[in-house]
Amino acid sequence: MALLIVGSVALDSIRTPHGEVKRALGGSATYAGIAASFFTCPHIVGVVGEDFPQEYIDLMKDKNCDLAGLKIIAKGKTFHWEGYYEENMSQAHTVSTCLNVFEFFQPDLPHHYRKSDFVFLANIDPELQLHVLEQVKKPKLVMCDTMNYWIESKREKLMEVFRRSDVVLVNEGEARLLTDSWSLIHAAEKLLDTGPSYVIIKKGEHGAFIMSRDDYFSLPAYPIKKIKDPTGAGDTFAGGFIGYLASQKRLTRANFRRAMAVGTVLASFVCEDFSVRGTISLTNSALNKRLREFYNHVRLSAVEL
Amino acid sequence: MALLIVGSVALDSIRTPHGEVKRALGGSATYAGIAASFFTCPHIVGVVGEDFPQEYIDLMKDKNCDLAGLKIIAKGKTFHWEGYYEENMSQAHTVSTCLNVFEFFQPDLPHHYRKSDFVFLANIDPELQLHVLEQVKKPKLVMCDTMNYWIESKREKLMEVFRRSDVVLVNEGEARLLTDSWSLIHAAEKLLDTGPSYVIIKKGEHGAFIMSRDDYFSLPAYPIKKIKDPTGAGDTFAGGFIGYLASQKRLTRANFRRAMAVGTVLASFVCEDFSVRGTISLTNSALNKRLREFYNHVRLSAVEL
Repeated sequence: MALLIVGSVALDSIRTPHGEVKRALGGSATYAGIAASFFTCPHIVGVVGEDFPQEYIDLMKDKNCDLAGLKIIAKGKTFHWEGYYEENMSQAHTVSTCLNVFEFFQPDLPHHYRKSDFVFLANIDPELQLHVLEQVKKPKLVMCDTMNYWIESKREKLMEVFRRSDVVLVNEGEARLLTDSWSLIHAAEKLLDTGPSYVIIKKGEHGAFIMSRDDYFSLPAYPIKKIKDPTGAGDTFAGGFIGYLASQKRLTRANFRRAMAVGTVLASFVCEDFSVRGTISLTNSALNKRLREFYNHVRLSAVEL
Repeated sequence: MALLIVGSVALDSIRTPHGEVKRALGGSATYAGIAASFFTCPHIVGVVGEDFPQEYIDLMKDKNCDLAGLKIIAKGKTFHWEGYYEENMSQAHTVSTCLNVFEFFQPDLPHHYRKSDFVFLANIDPELQLHVLEQVKKPKLVMCDTMNYWIESKREKLMEVFRRSDVVLVNEGEARLLTDSWSLIHAAEKLLDTGPSYVIIKKGEHGAFIMSRDDYFSLPAYPIKKIKDPTGAGDTFAGGFIGYLASQKRLTRANFRRAMAVGTVLASFVCEDFSVRGTISLTNSALNKRLREFYNHVRLSAVEL
């Protein structure tokens, strides 16, 4: 079924202890779209400037992304993020954020996008997230992400997005900031009270869990030996998760759990190289192989005293 | 099969945001012993002073602990730890540590302890851990714990303990300190190089994983809503883990994984109340119920593209 992804398409300049890249392909919609493309042809909505390399557009198109919703602003400059990671890869340090054309992003959906059954609202202004929801006709599943900036500056609008979402996806820090709770279990329960049916809390190297009113499921991260660049891991997880669900006939509990595993494993690939290289170059058979390995990492037999 | 546990038996005075206790029953051997007692009759080796309440001794004996190896020093005072936790329960703050009779602890094994098949060397001076190993005849499985103090002050002796252990059990901070590695996966690999067949890294609220040269298995923590007092969670995990293994006919991979689950679930009970109340009062049926719930929290169906 059709999947809509709205978010940033960006150029990232990143330095980590394992190397660096300049103006590499980045952005939440990019990472999520490429991850989702293993399962469906995602409809991308974003904005870039005239400086955005044609090569990157070709790359995404080759990966089966529908770019009808990617606006290219004449004479505009693309959103550019510059940052670095130290030995402890769990924290990104920002050097500069140039929003450029992204500052005036207006996510208007091409006509054929409006019937998307699955919607991923990546981290953008909650008012824009709501603007997207107004254009989509009866989606089956809406998932939203956000960041500390919107939690602090537009909380009311964000709560409206949460109320209208089926899945709220946040990281540890955002969960604590939103709920003022140290316990992530307690935080997830409080987030469920804001309206969604599912809350996913991403914990980086410690994996992720999903909670609904009557279920809880937790997965570790896939144990990669060398994290080269963790940028985009969360968005890759999200794209893999919702892309997998969009490819399934039914939204069963087992499929939600499989979707968590797919997102987790795709995120592991993206961390093994800079930018989107880890997922762009990934084959179905390599993905399947790691999914099987991962399944083995968590397989537990029933235990009874 | 017989299980030997060597460590501290102590009095703890603890304050958390949910209450406080004074001179409550504590110590690594106590927590581990009570957890292991669900599966076997653990042989405890430790030392206390004359001030150690008879009530605590009765409590452990009622729980099926063999206390033949618990020395009571006339006119001596029991090891007393005083500490507190703030809202973020992952870090204990020490107010005072009075080693008292524990400072001169000499773990000499009663004769019938020497044939123990399973040995848990809880966190004590590595020289004493080696002294214990010298007294035990051909154990089937030796597991050791340690702490930052010994890592920094007696590294060489500790490495000898690791070489002679089958399972090395450490927490996140200790793993990083031992290996100078941010990545816990990398840290576990480096620890395997020191000699043991298995390395377990405990991650508190994020669960634990076990790594061998050809396998990796990871579990989340059981999601408890209110952590009242996390003291002893790691030792309870250890006791449940090795106690379960000691009760099994064979040391299969599936049994190691089940042992991880048993340790994890027992640790969740101990966090729900102060001191050892959470495990002392626990029934087999309540433990089984939570084991089934936990099994459901991690159950994943195979996924193939």
